[in-house]
Amino acid sequence: MSDPTTPRLLRALSGETLDRPPIWFMRQAGRCLPEYRELRARAGDFISLAMNSEMAAEVTLQPMRRFAFDAAIVFADILLIPRALGQELWFEAGEGPRLGPLPAIEALRDQVQASTERLAPVGETIARVRAALEPERALIGFAGGPWTVATYMIEGRGSQREAARTFAYEHPEELDALLEVLVESTARYLVMQARAGAQALKIFESWAENLAEDVFERIVVRPHAAILEQVRAAGVTAPFIGFPRGAGALVEEYAEGTPVECVALDTQASAALGRRLQAQGKTIQGALDNLLLRAGGRALDARVEQLLNQWGEGAYVFNLGHGILQDTPIANIARVVERVTGQRVPQEFVA
Amino acid sequence: MSDPTTPRLLRALSGETLDRPPIWFMRQAGRCLPEYRELRARAGDFISLAMNSEMAAEVTLQPMRRFAFDAAIVFADILLIPRALGQELWFEAGEGPRLGPLPAIEALRDQVQASTERLAPVGETIARVRAALEPERALIGFAGGPWTVATYMIEGRGSQREAARTFAYEHPEELDALLEVLVESTARYLVMQARAGAQALKIFESWAENLAEDVFERIVVRPHAAILEQVRAAGVTAPFIGFPRGAGALVEEYAEGTPVECVALDTQASAALGRRLQAQGKTIQGALDNLLLRAGGRALDARVEQLLNQWGEGAYVFNLGHGILQDTPIANIARVVERVTGQRVPQEFVA
Repeated sequence: MSDPTTPRLLRALSGETLDRPPIWFMRQAGRCLPEYRELRARAGDFISLAMNSEMAAEVTLQPMRRFAFDAAIVFADILLIPRALGQELWFEAGEGPRLGPLPAIEALRDQVQASTERLAPVGETIARVRAALEPERALIGFAGGPWTVATYMIEGRGSQREAARTFAYEHPEELDALLEVLVESTARYLVMQARAGAQALKIFESWAENLAEDVFERIVVRPHAAILEQVRAAGVTAPFIGFPRGAGALVEEYAEGTPVECVALDTQASAALGRRLQAQGKTIQGALDNLLLRAGGRALDARVEQLLNQWGEGAYVFNLGHGILQDTPIANIARVVERVTGQRVPQEFVA
Repeated sequence: MSDPTTPRLLRALSGETLDRPPIWFMRQAGRCLPEYRELRARAGDFISLAMNSEMAAEVTLQPMRRFAFDAAIVFADILLIPRALGQELWFEAGEGPRLGPLPAIEALRDQVQASTERLAPVGETIARVRAALEPERALIGFAGGPWTVATYMIEGRGSQREAARTFAYEHPEELDALLEVLVESTARYLVMQARAGAQALKIFESWAENLAEDVFERIVVRPHAAILEQVRAAGVTAPFIGFPRGAGALVEEYAEGTPVECVALDTQASAALGRRLQAQGKTIQGALDNLLLRAGGRALDARVEQLLNQWGEGAYVFNLGHGILQDTPIANIARVVERVTGQRVPQEFVA
């Protein structure tokens, strides 16, 4: 058993079953808080905000002031890596990210070392947040999964992923080369984040859905395992949370094939699946429906109890199965945090 | 062991392991065949085609002339049920289906009996196809899963399903009432299809993805179990294929909770998951990636071998994990059918 002064999140990630699970929410920073929207309006575009350490630290800390979350997650974006590798990135209002043409693989490879340097502001954000955050609350660094990032780089936007999935079949060697560059850049980025103060590292493989098993093994499992190997080789011991969103039953292949300490489960995870992973020594995280968090009411209360009951007897991190939706009532977030932590949220933080 | 003159598909659905699995492809009728596109151009809109028994029978039979598929599936659409229940339905070119406002639940309930009568042309299509099809080839009837059909009825179109999933939380009683009407209408429709000559019945729950376990149980598993109960109560013994597409690990809860003879698996099904279902006495169907069928090449050949090897030692129906894509080369279809059946496709049918 770890030191009880260790942040609750890190105790859970080390495999400990706690009196109550730690709680944090994907996308807790940004999105639904009015103080975020106010700051965002001042910051200009999204990338300027993410690359401005002072403002990004403030956004990261905003939800921590309102709620007794056990962890903060640095405010950044999974597409900062392609940008740092030299692919043009911009955001269309109301439509999401757009990327310029995919550079040649050699050009990308040449930028790997420089990409880490260009991402230094994220390290500075982490250092600022860590300095401001209470010691019992952990700070999570993150990066996108190589496949998810590659789909954006190939398609130029977030969309059907059909073009990228077809690319995986028609150009397997080119894809493998791209994933290799992304693995190296991502590993270096995560090492930098850990050295700056991130105590846990999460890989968001947001588009692990609809992949055939052989493809999933090749483009998700192996790259994640390679990232962990490279990060560990650099001497970083921070625990990993792997999130192969939409992987369905392939989550079990993922858990077997990568040495992540924690597997984050999406909304459709079954109780039985989570318990099987716990029995295999994994901490699990998830999987409250973000639509239910927004809808609220008795159905929300009942589902929170169900999740606590079905997984709370093992190593478990309470979280959503997908990020908070923009129009989620703050009162609903407060209600769940209160139930899980047992700490009352002051009324002024609910409005 | 069943009578060896029984169609190969029905032997597999009865749990038999065969010298080679039966093969058919979702969306084999329509979509990618030039003779379909020609007929479609003459038929006018999609609904007119689906409700014209002579033309729908012809479309159903077209792929059977080219390829040694072991089963035909009646050419129809999952949205014929809401239309038969009185909700307006039309197709926007290039955009897919649109539905008018959702009628009141009482109005829908009043139409259940009439809906079966309005769907009589589908029965006639089935009778025509059965009369024309060789006895060793089976004919499959189908309907949409109540939840999938309900999402269209609620949202008025195929889209994000967010509105329908939110409806499931915010209006659980209204949704349950709608699902109950759809269960009854669907059961009657499937009974009608079986009596007209359909030898197996498939439920396409195309949008079983992203549902939390408790919701999945309530809006997918229970309605499917209720359909089976009502169809069996009417004396119909045709085997069922249940297809909860995108259900991920919840496929196992589905298999436990519904007495379908066969569980159709989507593209991301793992070998282990399929084998667990086979060990529990289910026949499985799937799960070739439709993008890979379109892409072709050595990757396609290799995956076909892998599927045959991983599941062929149990009760297995070879199929895709999702419907054929419109621009799939016919030569790729021919190649897979040849490999699975061992029968050469005549050259004139490949062009």
